[in-house]
Amino acid sequence: MKSRRLFLLANGVFGLAFLVALVIPVHALGQENASFNSHEVHVDGRITFRYLDANAGKVLLHLEGAAEALPMEKDGAGVWSVVTPSLTPEIYGYSFEVDGQEQFDPHNFEIKDNLVSVGNLVTVPGATLQVWEARDVPHGVVHHRFYTSKVVIGLADGNDYYVYTPPGYDAKKGKRYPVLYLLHGWSDKANGWTTVGKTNFIFDNLIAEGKVKPMVVVMPLGYGDIKFVLNGHGGWDDNAAIDRNVNLFSQALLTEIMPQVESEYRVSKKRDYRSIAGLSMGGLESLTVGLTHPELFAWVGGFSSALGHNDEERFAGVNAKSANLRLLWIACGTDEQLLAPNRKFVAWLKSKDVAVTVIETPGMHTWMVWRDDLARFAPLIFQK
Amino acid sequence: MKSRRLFLLANGVFGLAFLVALVIPVHALGQENASFNSHEVHVDGRITFRYLDANAGKVLLHLEGAAEALPMEKDGAGVWSVVTPSLTPEIYGYSFEVDGQEQFDPHNFEIKDNLVSVGNLVTVPGATLQVWEARDVPHGVVHHRFYTSKVVIGLADGNDYYVYTPPGYDAKKGKRYPVLYLLHGWSDKANGWTTVGKTNFIFDNLIAEGKVKPMVVVMPLGYGDIKFVLNGHGGWDDNAAIDRNVNLFSQALLTEIMPQVESEYRVSKKRDYRSIAGLSMGGLESLTVGLTHPELFAWVGGFSSALGHNDEERFAGVNAKSANLRLLWIACGTDEQLLAPNRKFVAWLKSKDVAVTVIETPGMHTWMVWRDDLARFAPLIFQK
Repeated sequence: MKSRRLFLLANGVFGLAFLVALVIPVHALGQENASFNSHEVHVDGRITFRYLDANAGKVLLHLEGAAEALPMEKDGAGVWSVVTPSLTPEIYGYSFEVDGQEQFDPHNFEIKDNLVSVGNLVTVPGATLQVWEARDVPHGVVHHRFYTSKVVIGLADGNDYYVYTPPGYDAKKGKRYPVLYLLHGWSDKANGWTTVGKTNFIFDNLIAEGKVKPMVVVMPLGYGDIKFVLNGHGGWDDNAAIDRNVNLFSQALLTEIMPQVESEYRVSKKRDYRSIAGLSMGGLESLTVGLTHPELFAWVGGFSSALGHNDEERFAGVNAKSANLRLLWIACGTDEQLLAPNRKFVAWLKSKDVAVTVIETPGMHTWMVWRDDLARFAPLIFQK
Repeated sequence: MKSRRLFLLANGVFGLAFLVALVIPVHALGQENASFNSHEVHVDGRITFRYLDANAGKVLLHLEGAAEALPMEKDGAGVWSVVTPSLTPEIYGYSFEVDGQEQFDPHNFEIKDNLVSVGNLVTVPGATLQVWEARDVPHGVVHHRFYTSKVVIGLADGNDYYVYTPPGYDAKKGKRYPVLYLLHGWSDKANGWTTVGKTNFIFDNLIAEGKVKPMVVVMPLGYGDIKFVLNGHGGWDDNAAIDRNVNLFSQALLTEIMPQVESEYRVSKKRDYRSIAGLSMGGLESLTVGLTHPELFAWVGGFSSALGHNDEERFAGVNAKSANLRLLWIACGTDEQLLAPNRKFVAWLKSKDVAVTVIETPGMHTWMVWRDDLARFAPLIFQK
């Protein structure tokens, strides 16, 4: 039953074969990078992971969406391996734990860029291209912008944000676009929503299908003080540190980033054409900003929001009248620790007669859930 | 004399202290990421590198700019360490070699994004901000664009290129800008010149100083067929594979990328306002395209160009009349294997009475040389 326990996951990303973890023989592997296949995706969606370390005592595979680490077994050549069950088409983050220390896969150039956790990415393709994949449709442009903040403390290269402009943006000189501010989670860099979240491809594809209004998407580095992440997880035990991080970032967003965006891009300044959403820490930030500034935003989304920290005080002034939004959309995975505080927050909102749309989807605190959230949320905003 | 041999490097990036590799005691280190300092930069420019692996038999440090790998020593807690001599302010790529296998540093979130080699980045700061660092000056914007090619075979996400627009680009609606096509080396992704080469900051800073004309810089993924890199180094032993890679990429550049850029950006279409340059494989490509299309480009640069492969045939039609460029600038590090073929190529050019500016700077086949090349080349182009 062990394999069942490992793979009865959770978020629907694992296929029907989860009951049997087939172990195929790992053939003799060369020592060179080019011939060492560390993440071999099979046609049936299984992945063979391999890690070379003849001296290690114990190697585990951490796979995004798996409830537990998967033990790997060593062969006579010092190659540790494990074969997953058949996996649903998705992008999977993973890392190896070698004698207690997380390691990158040195044979995979797809790195999950992150300020805290170590990891690579591997894609299980589907029969057709998924919504987060580059299809042969018109592509928007992702702009990377740098600014000097008087409010927040960012990385050595300064503070930055990414701006997605939809296909046709440059040609339609007279048109002003609706704008979505999309916030990443704790540990992400500003590129989280593009490099892992695939925001640009999701929008390209859904716009091409006519399901999403062409819009500008702004994805800023989302820390009030970069030390809130660089100092480690401990910040989440400190309500004052959380408040400071959220408040400083919110101030930079409202007084520095938004004015720059509205100066540099043809975006609407009307609340009905402004949205804010985010995942985890970014969900907390988007709910904080959105619910306390209904004059600025009419469409608010929280994906797996990092609630449960001083919520009563933070949202004390919120009520049905103040939060008269076009959409308040609160999503969470069903296998997340954050489900309970999200449900509690939703109950509190309802007690205040605040209208809220609640979405719970199968899954853990993973990018599978958030890419799916984005593909569900984007078609709802800026509609009549 | 061992430390002298290791550090008499080479490219001038190591400081005066190279004769003595001081070894300071490595103090007790915690096991947690937050407290484990894997790349501790000291005020005098030395760096202590640390790698935790109690079971490894041998760990080496590969440091960009160092002629040889640096042996690391293990303490009782299983932490391997080495202290470098005092290093010149620079960005240093590095990796660990653990029992023969290259590994990332799992405690450094600055990854050197690359399709082949494993590595991280660490910066030794100077007394003032260097030319490749973000200063408090107006910043240009880096655009990331995706396109479907009918010519070349790219990565799963398709083919992409980055476009730097200088400060003020959006405001000056009537102005057309000169354009530099800047090509990366073998193993780089399209982001090589921005994430490691720091092109945007180099241009921001030199434009702010009035040393460089405001220009648009286009940085495409530079492979004719991505397999030329994914299949490993062996491609460089196959002249037909090299020619195919260069020719397919050149075709995509001329027939797909340039027309898109000239449609989407306000860039000049006159040869006097077009330049092409690149490093290593990109140097070979820029010399190939530039010398065979003088009607398109008037300013051509090759940095540590990967010459020495069928050069006579590739450049057979080039002569003083055909290559009537405003600038042909050929640079190489003095400690590179590519110095000999570059010198041979320069001699051949001179035998054809082709005017050429030759620059040799101290250094190996490293980004220190290429950032410096860019900062030297950019002020020369589009000048009267």
